[in-house]
Amino acid sequence: MATETSLAERLLQGDKRALARAITLVENDDPRGWDLVREVYPHTGGAAVLGLTGAPGAGKSTLISALTKARRAQERDVAVLSIDPSSPFTKGALLGDRIRLTDHFLDPGVFIRSMANRGALGGLSEATLQAALLMDAAGKDDVFLETVGVGQAEIDVIDHADTVVLILIPGGGDSIQALKAGVMEIPDIIVVNKADHPMTDTMVREVRSVLSLAPHEKGTWRVPIVKTQAYRDIGIDELIEQIDAHRAYIQERGELEERRRRNLRSEVLALTTSRIRRRLDAALASDERFQALLQQVVERRLDPASAATEVLGRLDAGDLAID
Amino acid sequence: MATETSLAERLLQGDKRALARAITLVENDDPRGWDLVREVYPHTGGAAVLGLTGAPGAGKSTLISALTKARRAQERDVAVLSIDPSSPFTKGALLGDRIRLTDHFLDPGVFIRSMANRGALGGLSEATLQAALLMDAAGKDDVFLETVGVGQAEIDVIDHADTVVLILIPGGGDSIQALKAGVMEIPDIIVVNKADHPMTDTMVREVRSVLSLAPHEKGTWRVPIVKTQAYRDIGIDELIEQIDAHRAYIQERGELEERRRRNLRSEVLALTTSRIRRRLDAALASDERFQALLQQVVERRLDPASAATEVLGRLDAGDLAID
Repeated sequence: MATETSLAERLLQGDKRALARAITLVENDDPRGWDLVREVYPHTGGAAVLGLTGAPGAGKSTLISALTKARRAQERDVAVLSIDPSSPFTKGALLGDRIRLTDHFLDPGVFIRSMANRGALGGLSEATLQAALLMDAAGKDDVFLETVGVGQAEIDVIDHADTVVLILIPGGGDSIQALKAGVMEIPDIIVVNKADHPMTDTMVREVRSVLSLAPHEKGTWRVPIVKTQAYRDIGIDELIEQIDAHRAYIQERGELEERRRRNLRSEVLALTTSRIRRRLDAALASDERFQALLQQVVERRLDPASAATEVLGRLDAGDLAID
Repeated sequence: MATETSLAERLLQGDKRALARAITLVENDDPRGWDLVREVYPHTGGAAVLGLTGAPGAGKSTLISALTKARRAQERDVAVLSIDPSSPFTKGALLGDRIRLTDHFLDPGVFIRSMANRGALGGLSEATLQAALLMDAAGKDDVFLETVGVGQAEIDVIDHADTVVLILIPGGGDSIQALKAGVMEIPDIIVVNKADHPMTDTMVREVRSVLSLAPHEKGTWRVPIVKTQAYRDIGIDELIEQIDAHRAYIQERGELEERRRRNLRSEVLALTTSRIRRRLDAALASDERFQALLQQVVERRLDPASAATEVLGRLDAGDLAID
């Protein structure tokens, strides 16, 4: 217990190693991790959480490097949490590092971490939120969540951000299609990176036309399109301005609290459900009727969804106890 | 109803458009999709489901193209289901196609589809299994599941495979680290692709040494390491042989049924849990005490995990009804 208290204290003082250790506890679903989050939770809420999403190759990591540099120049502390397996930030995952991140790794004001494990209770999205909370409690001013933006887990992750930036590149028509089709929600800011490409202005026009089709209430946030060349630090100042403007906007209108309330609500729900699943799992392990039901599924006489309906019916009838 | 019957019939006859339509229904969580799976489920179980996983850049898509060609030469029908957002197979997702897949797209014996939506009830993993079942029912002999192998959703997806192939490339040391650390389960077959690279034999030795550390019961499956150069069709015949050998092995020992039983069990569980979550969501929407609890979370006085404990306690006490 003494160790945990001191871990919390060190974390709140911004100790990098304490933060790393805390995230590992959460990622491994170690009860001490959850105790720790409970303890430091009152000290969270101060960080600006920025979600950055885009296809592999859009230059997310380079952009995050540039943003980190800009935020450091403003004397803000930065944490990067990468959930994109194709990102060079994602150490310990399947990829080697293609970009030299050494500068940032040596800076005590920058903390970089990836989440790739199935790890924590309730899944990647829950573990990510807990990690972001720990970064927040450690006094980081900015938390950057990097995700590839496709797939359920990744979309759930981006929901934890206060501001969402979508990164596109000229010629990458599929992202535009995804926006048009409504597969992807309209982000708060759109970056067209690699803006030295001759197709840049065509891309900007296309994005503008997609945005003009989306419903827009008068006086509400108008999604800016920022052209950047991240590897040359071009456009980064304007991006920072737009990020800050968006934050000021949602704070003024009470939308920041609204977003956070919505995200925390689904967080509580997800955590509750995953505990119910664990209990159900345990209850069914020794349940003979379920074994017989499962045998029918294995023999292709009953499909999994119909079997689920039957289990649910037994729960409703009080015929199967999971508490 | 008449339309649904004929969709099922057309699907069972192997009609490509019917299969595409059916998967869309499942992906959109359309009740007709679930009815359809129920109807065709007795006709499933015949396909060999192969999971292919590896980091972006390992050459998964090229390898799948080569395997598809080889299977077509054996007059087997093939379906590819890609859950890797960085894959060129993943149409409609965020990436353009880097590889020309036109040959396969035009072959009536090959069906290619991606899953990127959060879509279906219970999430990506459930939608993927349903899609794989539909491909199976449509008479596909081989179903290839392509995943990037990092992240919870992707690992859940690979669990649906009968045989799992991990694709490595020379010099890609992080995958080896992931295996060593036990982050990644030992696959059934390991491919070292791009085997014209000078580091190939070093990689093979390293893989062998990691495998030698894993517990291995005498007489059980010994994970083969296959060197391939997928873009030149080199090593593909040997890979096909090993895939078939693994399948024969697990069939003989009853392991295939065992795997499928385990996967179908977690499928039933996942489907049950996601329905419980929906009900919980609905019940909490009009619950005043939950609103007060949530307010505490928003005000940083109570952390999300403790709030979840409280909700669970109310369910146990019969104080909150979700049926």
